[in-house]
Amino acid sequence: MTGPAVIDAGAVAATWDAVREQGPLVQCLTNIVVAPFTANVLLAVGAAPAMVDVPIEAGVFAGVAGAVLINLGTPYDATRAPMLEAARAAVAAGTPWVLDPVAVGALPVRTALARELLAVGPTVVRGNASEVLGLSGRSAAGRGVDAGDDAETAVPAARELLGAGGPGGPGGSAGGARAVAVSGPLDALVDAGRTVRVEGGTPMMTQVTGVGCALGALVAAGCAVTDDPLLAAVAATAGLCAAAELAVLAARGPGSFAVHLLDELALLTGEQLAPRVRLS
Amino acid sequence: MTGPAVIDAGAVAATWDAVREQGPLVQCLTNIVVAPFTANVLLAVGAAPAMVDVPIEAGVFAGVAGAVLINLGTPYDATRAPMLEAARAAVAAGTPWVLDPVAVGALPVRTALARELLAVGPTVVRGNASEVLGLSGRSAAGRGVDAGDDAETAVPAARELLGAGGPGGPGGSAGGARAVAVSGPLDALVDAGRTVRVEGGTPMMTQVTGVGCALGALVAAGCAVTDDPLLAAVAATAGLCAAAELAVLAARGPGSFAVHLLDELALLTGEQLAPRVRLS
Amino acid sequence: MTGPAVIDAGAVAATWDAVREQGPLVQCLTNIVVAPFTANVLLAVGAAPAMVDVPIEAGVFAGVAGAVLINLGTPYDATRAPMLEAARAAVAAGTPWVLDPVAVGALPVRTALARELLAVGPTVVRGNASEVLGLSGRSAAGRGVDAGDDAETAVPAARELLGAGGPGGPGGSAGGARAVAVSGPLDALVDAGRTVRVEGGTPMMTQVTGVGCALGALVAAGCAVTDDPLLAAVAATAGLCAAAELAVLAARGPGSFAVHLLDELALLTGEQLAPRVRLS
Repeated sequence: MTGPAVIDAGAVAATWDAVREQGPLVQCLTNIVVAPFTANVLLAVGAAPAMVDVPIEAGVFAGVAGAVLINLGTPYDATRAPMLEAARAAVAAGTPWVLDPVAVGALPVRTALARELLAVGPTVVRGNASEVLGLSGRSAAGRGVDAGDDAETAVPAARELLGAGGPGGPGGSAGGARAVAVSGPLDALVDAGRTVRVEGGTPMMTQVTGVGCALGALVAAGCAVTDDPLLAAVAATAGLCAAAELAVLAARGPGSFAVHLLDELALLTGEQLAPRVRLS
Repeated sequence: MTGPAVIDAGAVAATWDAVREQGPLVQCLTNIVVAPFTANVLLAVGAAPAMVDVPIEAGVFAGVAGAVLINLGTPYDATRAPMLEAARAAVAAGTPWVLDPVAVGALPVRTALARELLAVGPTVVRGNASEVLGLSGRSAAGRGVDAGDDAETAVPAARELLGAGGPGGPGGSAGGARAVAVSGPLDALVDAGRTVRVEGGTPMMTQVTGVGCALGALVAAGCAVTDDPLLAAVAATAGLCAAAELAVLAARGPGSFAVHLLDELALLTGEQLAPRVRLS
Repeated sequence: MTGPAVIDAGAVAATWDAVREQGPLVQCLTNIVVAPFTANVLLAVGAAPAMVDVPIEAGVFAGVAGAVLINLGTPYDATRAPMLEAARAAVAAGTPWVLDPVAVGALPVRTALARELLAVGPTVVRGNASEVLGLSGRSAAGRGVDAGDDAETAVPAARELLGAGGPGGPGGSAGGARAVAVSGPLDALVDAGRTVRVEGGTPMMTQVTGVGCALGALVAAGCAVTDDPLLAAVAATAGLCAAAELAVLAARGPGSFAVHLLDELALLTGEQLAPRVRLS
């Protein structure tokens, strides 16, 4: 499926359905807190998660996966090298890959790693405002995975992370991302020529660990079925928000919300999603 | 409890009840994706999980545990040595142990490790068809943890994995497994003299991460209460399938299915299980 | 909020509300089995979890966190150094920190680590009876995370773990804990001058993995909002027990219990908690 130049509800719905129909294999190098939920979210939308994050295998698998997710939540010594290996192998094989720079900004190890990964050229960077600001070097206001800033405030920083994707040149310039998704109450997503805002979701999404990280995984799944990374990110955001809006209706609290969210993600079709998409 | 030569619904039900009555201590060396669900499944059936997977402790504990599970989902450098340590200590102490060769076949690190572990002589190998084929060297068709093949197609490969259990001889021949359980829509389980097929379950089992891995843990729990490894594997399979069939009745999707599955596993008695067992 | 000398239902309720109002940042260095549930429990009560457990970052973050939790469930080579780093940085910065000595006693690696951490001077030690006995050197009866002993039997051992908090003197004497919480059907909590018993909860709490570990996290959250560590531990225990009593009413089994527990923790106010607090 080739991505359209115009991102509208129809394109979003078609991308959502394409994930379910094609069932892309999504390799995840992620953290110990969200790994189970991430896998379950991917399964719910029809993708096939594979947590392959040891040296040698990480690179081998990135060559055959439909997309790769690299999430920096717990960047252990043992997994940093496989993350770089997977990113480079993905670029070499033409596999799209998503960088989720969890808590980047204030914490030195992951911040250095995130910048090294950015130079490899991710297809999409997905983070909250403080993470995008932190990665751009504009701010280190983040406290853990909290969103300390409104997504809109990070749009200039998001633009600074853009590049052509793929490896940086010999002069050492960063490869940059093809698209950047900034999460928040109102999500802001950018690529070289477009800015899209996605409205929706529920505050309950911040009361369950790993919802933001799961969005990164959904963006990766989307990238496996369209060659328009911004569309992939918009579709993942809109789909997750729509499922969350449905899930919260029946939830008493964050425990039942997380359960309902997986159910709604599994039940949501493109046809049901289309009228719920609110872009601007 | 001594295992009977004939595996029927009565023997399956008695094994299921024996786990609840004896509450065996099951040591798990497993992966970051399924560790929480595995522990909760073991608790639900009355077993006591203990995730002891650091060097020294892994071997010490395998000597006192009722059974050991070794699952290769995320075979980090730091946990591969403890896995071998636990397997060898289990054999030395007469503790039954189960090998779950997650995604073995296409991925080189875990495939080499799985073969090394097979030579130590697991009590049971539990995998899907592509994993069993991959471990036997017949195929590398697996893509992650997906079952790429029907269980029945892997029965010849499963037979090749059989041995006497325990360490291989001085000539370097593999110890092999005492029983092999191949998971799929129709499970096929073999030991040196018997082949049993278990019907049941629901496709929803493949939409929740770690259900197959949880089966490996249940097989280990079963091995702690019967000296017939094939019976242990059949009982675990039949019990999980029966609980899943009950769970799916009330499930809207994979989120609620996983919750109900834990509830049904906790509620299921041997008496309720017996009429649901479908063997051939 | 300054802790009162008398611990009663009113003080417990005020501490519970203070966590929700202040939303303390709780750094967790914990194990792969319970990390997701721990994070979700902290989010449910209004705290902000951050799993920061890599070298350098662990120490940096302990200086800015509201409290630190160190849980020894899976004490990998790679995380033992960051645990000591975080503990020492917490003491240096005046950040309260909680030690959860999971399965300490029988297992040598974590037992040595737990004693080293005890010498650094935790604010609170939270464990079951066998773990507290194991840490004190009185017993090694523990089998994994099972509570092999009644909490009351560990009160003398708990008193032996007390010290002034903070680092041990030049003579090498242990710093000790400012308070020790022994979990069980009837919880027993001690500091230098007081002993409090908390009644409540439900046996279902032992059928879900990580409930005890989540209590350790709640104690840490409490320590971030009161300078009375015993009050923090009593409030965490009473709040978790009250939520569990409510959750079990609607639960069919351990799966739905865990979901309801998160909901009830999120809904529970100090006003609702106060009449449910049973101290002696």
